[in-house]
Amino acid sequence: MKIPFNKPYLTGKELVYIENAVTKGKISGNGYYTNLCHRFFESKYGFQKCLLTTSCTDALEMAAILINIKEGDEVIMPSYTFVSTANAFVLRGAKIIFADSRKDHPGIDEEAIEALITPKTKAIVPVHYAGVACDMDKIMDLAKQYNLFVIEDAAQAIDSFYTGKDGVQRPLGSIGHLAAFSFHETKNIISGEGGMLVINDSQFTERAEIIWEKGTNRSAFFRGEIDKYGWVDIGSSFLPSDIIAAFLWAQLENLKDIQKVRISHWEHYNRELQRWAIENEIQLPTIPSYATNNGHMFYLVCKNTEQRTAIIEKLKSKGILSVFHYISLHSSLFYKDSYDGKPLTESDRYSDCVLRLPMFYELNVNNVVNNIKK
Amino acid sequence: MKIPFNKPYLTGKELVYIENAVTKGKISGNGYYTNLCHRFFESKYGFQKCLLTTSCTDALEMAAILINIKEGDEVIMPSYTFVSTANAFVLRGAKIIFADSRKDHPGIDEEAIEALITPKTKAIVPVHYAGVACDMDKIMDLAKQYNLFVIEDAAQAIDSFYTGKDGVQRPLGSIGHLAAFSFHETKNIISGEGGMLVINDSQFTERAEIIWEKGTNRSAFFRGEIDKYGWVDIGSSFLPSDIIAAFLWAQLENLKDIQKVRISHWEHYNRELQRWAIENEIQLPTIPSYATNNGHMFYLVCKNTEQRTAIIEKLKSKGILSVFHYISLHSSLFYKDSYDGKPLTESDRYSDCVLRLPMFYELNVNNVVNNIKK
Repeated sequence: MKIPFNKPYLTGKELVYIENAVTKGKISGNGYYTNLCHRFFESKYGFQKCLLTTSCTDALEMAAILINIKEGDEVIMPSYTFVSTANAFVLRGAKIIFADSRKDHPGIDEEAIEALITPKTKAIVPVHYAGVACDMDKIMDLAKQYNLFVIEDAAQAIDSFYTGKDGVQRPLGSIGHLAAFSFHETKNIISGEGGMLVINDSQFTERAEIIWEKGTNRSAFFRGEIDKYGWVDIGSSFLPSDIIAAFLWAQLENLKDIQKVRISHWEHYNRELQRWAIENEIQLPTIPSYATNNGHMFYLVCKNTEQRTAIIEKLKSKGILSVFHYISLHSSLFYKDSYDGKPLTESDRYSDCVLRLPMFYELNVNNVVNNIKK
Repeated sequence: MKIPFNKPYLTGKELVYIENAVTKGKISGNGYYTNLCHRFFESKYGFQKCLLTTSCTDALEMAAILINIKEGDEVIMPSYTFVSTANAFVLRGAKIIFADSRKDHPGIDEEAIEALITPKTKAIVPVHYAGVACDMDKIMDLAKQYNLFVIEDAAQAIDSFYTGKDGVQRPLGSIGHLAAFSFHETKNIISGEGGMLVINDSQFTERAEIIWEKGTNRSAFFRGEIDKYGWVDIGSSFLPSDIIAAFLWAQLENLKDIQKVRISHWEHYNRELQRWAIENEIQLPTIPSYATNNGHMFYLVCKNTEQRTAIIEKLKSKGILSVFHYISLHSSLFYKDSYDGKPLTESDRYSDCVLRLPMFYELNVNNVVNNIKK
């Protein structure tokens, strides 16, 4: 392919910091760079407590453990999302209640949530699709009214914001009780594989550290708070190597530049494709007034699957790779038999019609745009 | 500390391969170096199928999912082990049945296992402590007789072997239905954090790949076996970044040299401390005739905790760090209330008396030995 769908961007310092991590003689988890990354996120975005994880999936699993998901608990989330959003809760025994997407946007239809709440509902998991905020006031109000937890799946939502009805602009990931970010190589800020759990409710802070460290109170031990550490809870090895954190730190130092370039690519696509989209009955991304655009993804909503396939094939013939995703989870092989059958038409429409165009730092947008228009 | 307990050893190619992984434009999981590592283990040790994971903990969790651990299933393992051996199964709802250790060695007392088997027993998890083989014939015979799975916790057991009653020498990790290795920075072969699941029973192969890839059939998709991939099972993001695999590959290329040096350190300790150990009523490591020594760990079994504390303090005053582990899991804060109270005297003795001496590639053993003898 002349133009891949994604190309991991190196800021130039990644290998220097990895070498430095190795020289420090500590490349397991919770080392020097892990700490730098935690402090960065906590101070830049006001996240109360951050813990790097080996993936966003693992951050969601930590969240599921923290809110004590048990067999039969219900968790509401959009059907149009990545499998990990659901799997993390299914692993703890939850029943997933799928909501439809909005008409104007693949994010969860906030108006559809309340009807899905039952006495068994334990949490709502809004997914900030393409880094565009869900209407968090509506979701947090429901959570308060029905005493539910909110876990933001902010996998794609780094450096994106939500302005509430109080007029205050808040970073995504700082609003729910817990939030999960991804640093997978396809994201804006990357570490190959990687993720982060954000804890905004202090009732979870102490236990989160324990679960992160394999169910032991090792963190407290290293702070000198106890004189011996041992097994105190369930948990897993959620910590990434400091090699991964060193890579991530080089990226974070360049967050501003990366965001500027990606947003400019996004705006370039959006500007150049407006007329073509109207002519071809294609929907371009919508950014609601309360949300920001973080330049994570530029997608088209085609008028049908045939049109999507035709565009994919045409671009492929020019050496350009465009991709589609997700299969609605309620229609998946794994879950369709457990699903009650209510149609989720918008979710299915996005499954059939969303097409993601190449998006990465070093992309020549003109090249893609010109080939699309042809 | 002049002499740390552990110092990660760099073979010299780690950063070169990491740079190469990045240049290839694929630093998420299941990339070029991941594949090289898989092939290495499969061909060198005859493991049927290998999957790198983000940690040994995660490999054990995959094993627990693969054997379908459900609420109330019982799993037999030594109490004297790391928390992850147990947590992986507890996370799936298992009840852990703890066995005592051998008198001559901290490994599981093979003779104690049969009495612990009940109709609810699903698996035995032998831990090859210090890389020294458990008596696998005894364990595999029991498993066959009672229809149980055997999952080798081979965290410390790379390049170590077991000779069965048939006279054949087999690598540890190739004998049980499944096995888990660790590449944590304290191990012989490292990647900071990291692990590997070994599948020796082909009934698990296809599902293992799915669970590894977040419960999707993505691996089959990339092999061209299906035309679309989706959610087909539970799973998690068990894949490490190819950055981690690139680091590991540099280590594996030097396995022979690393093993040679570590075993020579071990033999140096063992030779020089024989007389001192007898004089001080200290037990040195035992390697049963069916097992090999892989130079992972040199430990002392002190005559009591006071003696251990005295040695730790004395070495500390000379700038040498020695450490102890584990708190018997049946006595842990998390599990003691669920434990039936049967005393596990050997396990407790090792908890109280085991002391690990510094062990790493660049170690000057003489320096430690001379300070111990003084």
